Amino acid sequence: MATVANDILIAYPPVGDHRLRRIVALPEHVRVTVGLDSSEALDALSGAASRAGRTIGVYVEMDVGMHRVGLPDVDDIVELARRASDAPGVHYRGVMFYPGHIREHVSQQTPALARLRADLRERIDALAAARLAPQVVSGGSTPTAFASHSVDSMTEMRPGTYIFSDRTTAEIGAARMEDCAFTVLATVVSTAVPGQAVVDAGSKALGREPLRGAAGEGFGVLLTAHDVTVHAMSEEHGLLRLPGNGGWRPRVGDTVRIIPNHVCYSVNLHPVLWAVSDSTIVDRWEVAGRP
Amino acid sequence: MATVANDILIAYPPVGDHRLRRIVALPEHVRVTVGLDSSEALDALSGAASRAGRTIGVYVEMDVGMHRVGLPDVDDIVELARRASDAPGVHYRGVMFYPGHIREHVSQQTPALARLRADLRERIDALAAARLAPQVVSGGSTPTAFASHSVDSMTEMRPGTYIFSDRTTAEIGAARMEDCAFTVLATVVSTAVPGQAVVDAGSKALGREPLRGAAGEGFGVLLTAHDVTVHAMSEEHGLLRLPGNGGWRPRVGDTVRIIPNHVCYSVNLHPVLWAVSDSTIVDRWEVAGRP
Repeated sequence: MATVANDILIAYPPVGDHRLRRIVALPEHVRVTVGLDSSEALDALSGAASRAGRTIGVYVEMDVGMHRVGLPDVDDIVELARRASDAPGVHYRGVMFYPGHIREHVSQQTPALARLRADLRERIDALAAARLAPQVVSGGSTPTAFASHSVDSMTEMRPGTYIFSDRTTAEIGAARMEDCAFTVLATVVSTAVPGQAVVDAGSKALGREPLRGAAGEGFGVLLTAHDVTVHAMSEEHGLLRLPGNGGWRPRVGDTVRIIPNHVCYSVNLHPVLWAVSDSTIVDRWEVAGRP
Repeated sequence: MATVANDILIAYPPVGDHRLRRIVALPEHVRVTVGLDSSEALDALSGAASRAGRTIGVYVEMDVGMHRVGLPDVDDIVELARRASDAPGVHYRGVMFYPGHIREHVSQQTPALARLRADLRERIDALAAARLAPQVVSGGSTPTAFASHSVDSMTEMRPGTYIFSDRTTAEIGAARMEDCAFTVLATVVSTAVPGQAVVDAGSKALGREPLRGAAGEGFGVLLTAHDVTVHAMSEEHGLLRLPGNGGWRPRVGDTVRIIPNHVCYSVNLHPVLWAVSDSTIVDRWEVAGRP
């Protein structure tokens, strides 16, 4: 899977010399864009890019309800966009946002999407009035992916979980459970305690990720029996609560495949993924972005 | 830090050919002991060891209240110990347990330790009556480490978190906060949302580990300000809730050190630890056991 990217978005504040060094060391032919939300980050990027004799694209990150990073206030957004527009070494390309607060079931998202559309419109109008109309409006998320067309000002979408899907995505209706392409292969290592089976996939394999925006307990479900959950975990132990009389009764040594609540986290816990087609391993993918 | 171990305990059920292959491939001069709780695991180990022409030690794992792995029933314990005693390729060395259910503050553990002592005595007496008296009684945990002498039948202790300590250990009184030797160095990347600062250490650096057995919210605290917690996280974002008027106000680019709730989990998320003495890096430790 050797690919050459000509367009890279770094959707994370480029704070710290270690980040700036890596950004300006990217090959010259790559168009790099960086999202940021502070004058500190902008000024440092501008300085590093100028010294390296190159121009780095900038998105001003806006908070539209997630309350994590991004400027909430429209005047602050305009001010930072102006500063990006004036600074050497950087090119103001537009704005970005992440609507990660919209976690309702896809059938219930209409009001939240309407608010998002209106909030974006207000900000973009203010930027346009200041002659800072964004060339790109970058947003998107997996829960809202199929409603992206309704966010009419958005020109770029960045859904992440989408590529594999997971239990959370399926529970909120953004995929079907049978669309989930990532599972953790685990072995039953103990059935000593009545009513449960213990597998060798715990929090270090699945992650202790909550099922956000949906009802349901546990940290993952079996691929072949969605009613069997990993209801508790230690680092190297996953505890499966067994169904009642006449239900599934695994033996020590049996293997199971587990769909995790949150695939992004589980991927990062593994150095390698095995691509499987019709029960045959067809490829080996190194998780290159893992620290 | 090159060390040669002559005595290795594998405190995890050796289920699956991949585990058995690695166990019997350990150097001949190493005395290997394996904990297990099923005849399936025992028989497979016995077969693999016999074929490899070596003898592997066995602890029969007992459940004393954690309800994770280990046999809860004394008759089952005696039966598996007898089977281990009779099987080729293995040597019955004793019993093991993990009292991970005892998570009270150290000042409140006396009743739980008394129950543990009595439960162990009952099981050991039953084994002795069957001429299967354990040579080793292996137990221990970090929360109970300093009370180990009160568990009078125990001959081996295996506290893990103990080596670094963490916020949980400190909160339950098994260490002081200033004993915590492991911190995550993080950089403030955003202060755009009022009332909070965002650092570049989220769940992929700290782990989403609860503060078990103690009151308190969040996933870690600042080394220099224990009242500032990481109150929420995304994968690459840690959200610090800032104290009220006149309190600490970080700037983008500032660095902080965070004591995680659970150090064992955080260690596994990093490929390398840096050993620091008086603000100077004195060593680099690879996390060799990380997958």
